[in-house]
Amino acid sequence: MSDQAIILFAHGARDPEWAAPFDNIKRRLQAERPGVQVELAFQDFMSPTLDEAVARSAANGAKRMVLVPLFMAQGGHLKQDLPRLVAQIRAQHPQIELKVTAAIGDSPEILQAIGDWVLRGAAA
Amino acid sequence: MSDQAIILFAHGARDPEWAAPFDNIKRRLQAERPGVQVELAFQDFMSPTLDEAVARSAANGAKRMVLVPLFMAQGGHLKQDLPRLVAQIRAQHPQIELKVTAAIGDSPEILQAIGDWVLRGAAA
Repeated sequence: MSDQAIILFAHGARDPEWAAPFDNIKRRLQAERPGVQVELAFQDFMSPTLDEAVARSAANGAKRMVLVPLFMAQGGHLKQDLPRLVAQIRAQHPQIELKVTAAIGDSPEILQAIGDWVLRGAAA
Repeated sequence: MSDQAIILFAHGARDPEWAAPFDNIKRRLQAERPGVQVELAFQDFMSPTLDEAVARSAANGAKRMVLVPLFMAQGGHLKQDLPRLVAQIRAQHPQIELKVTAAIGDSPEILQAIGDWVLRGAAA
């Protein structure tokens, strides 16, 4: 196991089925990077929280963490809530190198993939 | 202009920047299908509502509409709120053929694209 962790951060919902696509992404990543810890974390309604996922990764030896917000768009959750959570984590775990990536909707490749998928669905 | 419309249905947020990726997807689709009406619609906080977008498309001559939920995952919004909205629309516009597609996270291709994007970001 490397000292790297990927933490996929999603919104969460009351409906357990809501987590399915995020679980799917986690499994894909874990299969492609068997040596890297891949964790899900949720802002609301579901567990683990971001705090808990970071603590678990750290306890398992992760020193470099990449936090990927699996949010479609930039809004209050990513602009206000997440920076606050990240600041707390950095204060609690000063030894950990924590990088935060862009949101899903910031990626032109994914917007292209979504557009292509819409056209396939619209044509079907 | 064909009689077809694509309506991209997103959650909405208080932050105007939140709509940017959805606007981007709308512009991509409009460029690829110049003869089709492409509209955004929002569940909360932003306008137009789904009702308003459907009424506008219908006023512009759309008879076949494809409603694409730009939500990552299946939860209360898609399982309870959206079917209720769709039932109202079908009652108000019985002449319109309205198809509802799956959510973004139901598409294996998009989950793959997101996984690939995470790995690129994690490696960067």
